[in-house]
Amino acid sequence: MSTELARRIADHVEEIADFPKPGLRFRDITPILQDAELFGDVVDAFAEEFKDREIDLICGIEARGFLFSAALAYRLQMGMIPIRWPGKLPPETQRTVFELEYGFDALEVHRAAFAGGKSVLLVDDLLATGATMRACVDLVRQAGGKVIAGAVVVEIPTLEGREKLKDMEIHALASL
Amino acid sequence: MSTELARRIADHVEEIADFPKPGLRFRDITPILQDAELFGDVVDAFAEEFKDREIDLICGIEARGFLFSAALAYRLQMGMIPIRWPGKLPPETQRTVFELEYGFDALEVHRAAFAGGKSVLLVDDLLATGATMRACVDLVRQAGGKVIAGAVVVEIPTLEGREKLKDMEIHALASL
Repeated sequence: MSTELARRIADHVEEIADFPKPGLRFRDITPILQDAELFGDVVDAFAEEFKDREIDLICGIEARGFLFSAALAYRLQMGMIPIRWPGKLPPETQRTVFELEYGFDALEVHRAAFAGGKSVLLVDDLLATGATMRACVDLVRQAGGKVIAGAVVVEIPTLEGREKLKDMEIHALASL
Repeated sequence: MSTELARRIADHVEEIADFPKPGLRFRDITPILQDAELFGDVVDAFAEEFKDREIDLICGIEARGFLFSAALAYRLQMGMIPIRWPGKLPPETQRTVFELEYGFDALEVHRAAFAGGKSVLLVDDLLATGATMRACVDLVRQAGGKVIAGAVVVEIPTLEGREKLKDMEIHALASL
């Protein structure tokens, strides 16, 4: 983790109390996107970390994960697969349902995307409780893919997301 | 419009009947993303078209617009602003409500993003009826921004989306 990049990222995350539910704290990462130089440096830092790894596809997690995964796929000249909320990916999908801090959620992915055991890098903006990343790892594996690592811009270590992801590599550019 | 790129794009859009509602035809653009070379060529074609224009920010429309807008923002070294479905962008947003083929929808954007009259390129995957792009143009203008153009990967001319967008430039890479 580059200390200087980590500091710049942390400076560009805004905390909003009691959103989306009372008692939760929302982290707004949009200031990172708005700063062209920082956004570029984030994508380049991911690229530097993963450019020599055996990766077939970048998987982005809806919706903010799309922002970083698409730019990284472009940078690394790799294909990209979106993992989406239900009902967005006709026709043949694999689905997983999982628990969040505020209820349940579900995610889907095109089953055929991982045919032949594709190696996948999962990308999201934030690692909080780890529930979403855990669900995506299981989803990709159920669909026949191999998860190489999970890459996130920011992690919140106090929420202990890595506890749910002990069977895989997690790469975070900054901690909050 | 490059004929060869347009043909490759069209070959990578799958039509799915009666989705998301009976009578509608869904266009699945995920095969474009999955083809690393084509995805790169799409982003480069947008970059070539807009690199010398006076643009301050790239605006991506949730959710598939995020995929192309984020890669383009990275490529052009510009900041990116997400236009999102309601309730995703705390705290201070500008909202618009608009009619779609299957009911109403709403979009929001951070009001402060356009302070000082920023010039904006709007990016989405698909131009169909034009309702979403129209809503985004109005939203950006209400928030104080100036819309330079709308860029879409694919347009469907039979749905006459450009009729709703006569007051602006639309750049499409392919037609279906």
